[in-house]
Amino acid sequence: MEIELEKINPKFVELFTQTYGFTEAEFALFLTYFKPKTISKKDYYLRAGEVCKSKAYLNKGCARNFVLDDQGHERILFFAFEDWWLGDFDSYYSGKPGTNYVQILEDSELLVISKENFQKAEKEIPKLQQWYSSKMLRSASASRNRIEEMKTLSAEERYLKLMEQQPHIFQRIPLQYIACYLNIEPQSLSRIRHRLTNKH
Amino acid sequence: MEIELEKINPKFVELFTQTYGFTEAEFALFLTYFKPKTISKKDYYLRAGEVCKSKAYLNKGCARNFVLDDQGHERILFFAFEDWWLGDFDSYYSGKPGTNYVQILEDSELLVISKENFQKAEKEIPKLQQWYSSKMLRSASASRNRIEEMKTLSAEERYLKLMEQQPHIFQRIPLQYIACYLNIEPQSLSRIRHRLTNKH
Repeated sequence: MEIELEKINPKFVELFTQTYGFTEAEFALFLTYFKPKTISKKDYYLRAGEVCKSKAYLNKGCARNFVLDDQGHERILFFAFEDWWLGDFDSYYSGKPGTNYVQILEDSELLVISKENFQKAEKEIPKLQQWYSSKMLRSASASRNRIEEMKTLSAEERYLKLMEQQPHIFQRIPLQYIACYLNIEPQSLSRIRHRLTNKH
Repeated sequence: MEIELEKINPKFVELFTQTYGFTEAEFALFLTYFKPKTISKKDYYLRAGEVCKSKAYLNKGCARNFVLDDQGHERILFFAFEDWWLGDFDSYYSGKPGTNYVQILEDSELLVISKENFQKAEKEIPKLQQWYSSKMLRSASASRNRIEEMKTLSAEERYLKLMEQQPHIFQRIPLQYIACYLNIEPQSLSRIRHRLTNKH
């Protein structure tokens, strides 16, 4: 199945053709490596125990990435929205079964590229490596910042930071998931929100 | 000041000459970009508010990387030992003042390479980029694993995992720092250790 250009998120096109300077031919070639996929709300892109063999560009929709703790409780690592990439990074590189679940939270459109095709594309379009190195840098940096935040901010501060940096999360993600992501009990999050709202 | 080859950690030599296949000439050139530096116990390689303008290979010794929370409490992100690289990643890339303190915990020997020299070396020895990409991947992966651990493991489990994976830490790092790293109160860590010791 071919991907229709007009259905692709403009950010995807801009990233590769403008920021990374792919020629028209390179971008067309790159696109042939992807397969479109739709996933319905509540279904999974990936489950723990599976090997992650592809990267998926989230063209439309949103998802949550979570792991289970020893008691079987879900622990949300992050949410993904349009223009993010889905997958289990460690499993993708190691080829071993992963620990992450990626569950779709709104009916979503994905552009999926297999590991094999990505490696082909990297050889044929060296500029792709530049994008990927830069993505790795930002991803490592984001994870470090997350660790710093988890180490240094109180529950209320974590909530306020999220409100400031990603206010759209509160429009699209159920509050109990946000509480889980922030490591706050849902009742505590409601109390914090109530208290802060009444301040204004 | 020139670096004497026999004083360099064999892991450093092996990494670049064997794993990444630097020729003798490339390795010799690479070494000219480094400056040796010794730092005494308790002194700092880097403080929050400073711009991190170099990478430092920890040839001998150990260090801790920490941030301060709003109340001014130290929060330890990780410990570094021989064959690690010191610095504040975000500050290095952004050129802005960083948030991390890097404090030396034993009299240490560093091999320091400035950002400028590293960029020169990358151009002259393209194999260096391969090493660096792979390092980024592993670093991003380690940070993600750390987040998963912080999200899913109990205090006792975090302690046991550290004992299993990095037992040397307990020989070289004061227990109150390990407690801080594990997000456990020092008294709780002592209790956990006491209880587990008495089990055997």
